[in-house]
Amino acid sequence: MKLLRFKTGEVEKKGVLVDGKIRRVLGTFFDNFTVTDEIYEIDEVHFLPPVIPSKIVCIGRNYADHAKELGNEVPTEPLIFLKPNSAINNHEGLIIYPEQSNRVDYEAELAIVIKKRCKSVSEEDALDYVLGYTCFNDITARDIQKKEGKFTRAKSFDTFAPFGPFIETEFESFDNLSVKSFVNGEIRQDGNTKDMIFKVPQLISFISKVMTLYPGDVIATGTPEGVGELKPGDVVEVEVEGVGRLRNYVTKEN
Amino acid sequence: MKLLRFKTGEVEKKGVLVDGKIRRVLGTFFDNFTVTDEIYEIDEVHFLPPVIPSKIVCIGRNYADHAKELGNEVPTEPLIFLKPNSAINNHEGLIIYPEQSNRVDYEAELAIVIKKRCKSVSEEDALDYVLGYTCFNDITARDIQKKEGKFTRAKSFDTFAPFGPFIETEFESFDNLSVKSFVNGEIRQDGNTKDMIFKVPQLISFISKVMTLYPGDVIATGTPEGVGELKPGDVVEVEVEGVGRLRNYVTKEN
Repeated sequence: MKLLRFKTGEVEKKGVLVDGKIRRVLGTFFDNFTVTDEIYEIDEVHFLPPVIPSKIVCIGRNYADHAKELGNEVPTEPLIFLKPNSAINNHEGLIIYPEQSNRVDYEAELAIVIKKRCKSVSEEDALDYVLGYTCFNDITARDIQKKEGKFTRAKSFDTFAPFGPFIETEFESFDNLSVKSFVNGEIRQDGNTKDMIFKVPQLISFISKVMTLYPGDVIATGTPEGVGELKPGDVVEVEVEGVGRLRNYVTKEN
Repeated sequence: MKLLRFKTGEVEKKGVLVDGKIRRVLGTFFDNFTVTDEIYEIDEVHFLPPVIPSKIVCIGRNYADHAKELGNEVPTEPLIFLKPNSAINNHEGLIIYPEQSNRVDYEAELAIVIKKRCKSVSEEDALDYVLGYTCFNDITARDIQKKEGKFTRAKSFDTFAPFGPFIETEFESFDNLSVKSFVNGEIRQDGNTKDMIFKVPQLISFISKVMTLYPGDVIATGTPEGVGELKPGDVVEVEVEGVGRLRNYVTKEN
């Protein structure tokens, strides 16, 4: 099942995709909800982020080939960083290229959405805490990241955390999903989650031993090799197998 | 004026300190509020974090002597990191010493609370966006920080972001305030914000050019020299001139 949030006029609504159309949903994605007969065409709604998390936890260098392409060692434990909610962006939203950067990169990622409160869970139980998965673009001001040697500032600019368009709730494992990115329709990354250094259950267990995860929290699981530059005017897409494509438009700050 | 949030029984309330007693407040700290005649003694309430931010932005190495004591260069630009809301802790709350660390440190800091939405503001206008200031203890698993060379995981454990007890709303500048820490009553840090490398207006302006700040957002401005170790059983206090003392109790994870 594909869950989404959207707006028609000024009203924010929740929905589910059925036979290519959106059916409005009442209730919460984390408990019980009712599918109504209120139906919308996909192209008549404004997409919203499919969920508003209490935090976005990201993983650095989780594919060996990507660690190598940036000249980094493969980590021995998951490398955690956070993106602020002020960076959240939606399907079809603008990515604002900041004045203070001269090198902004796309990073296609599988993201996991948490279903229920989760503290110090085992790898074996980890998937019980997952609502579903989505596409995530971990936009990064690479020049600032390199200069600082830290993740936070470079990855925290407003609009730098697009995710969506849907949360796919049907899954068995996350160990063999293709993850791709496209710039202006050309493929740039063509990875697969089978090449992750730390798999999804390990990540959830590891993170939950540091910080309690709450319903709606998002975990972006790292990007495969092939990252590269965006320019104002570009259209960037992230495709995760089973979800669809997250599309965003790069524009200059004014 | 000193603002706080507290609980009596199961009810969460807002208040203001008047003549050493708490008077309940109705409304929001960010707009208009009314001071009522409902009065409580300080020692009969359970303190809550004085505000729930949408994010906690922290600054690393903002005092030259502290950068030196950890063997780091003095930064040429503010070094930003984030703590997750799951780490928020209140005055009189327990700090949980995590199993996976063998070295947990206190870090006394001045924290600023944002009053209104703030995006790309100038240094000159920055203080117009400040509601007030409070005490912050940037608890850090120093061994994990050293091993990773990153801030996030080491500083994001549950309970690692105590702040409070009050937000003091009267201020002219933040350029000359004493910032102290105490462990079991003994003074450990005795700094002053005059030694900050980047002053509060610079920090607000700099951060707001990366990420939009929202009402209630907290900026922890860095710690002076004298950081050191906590052990289970310790009582740690942070005192910022004009606010009072934030007190927390260290305990083992079980």
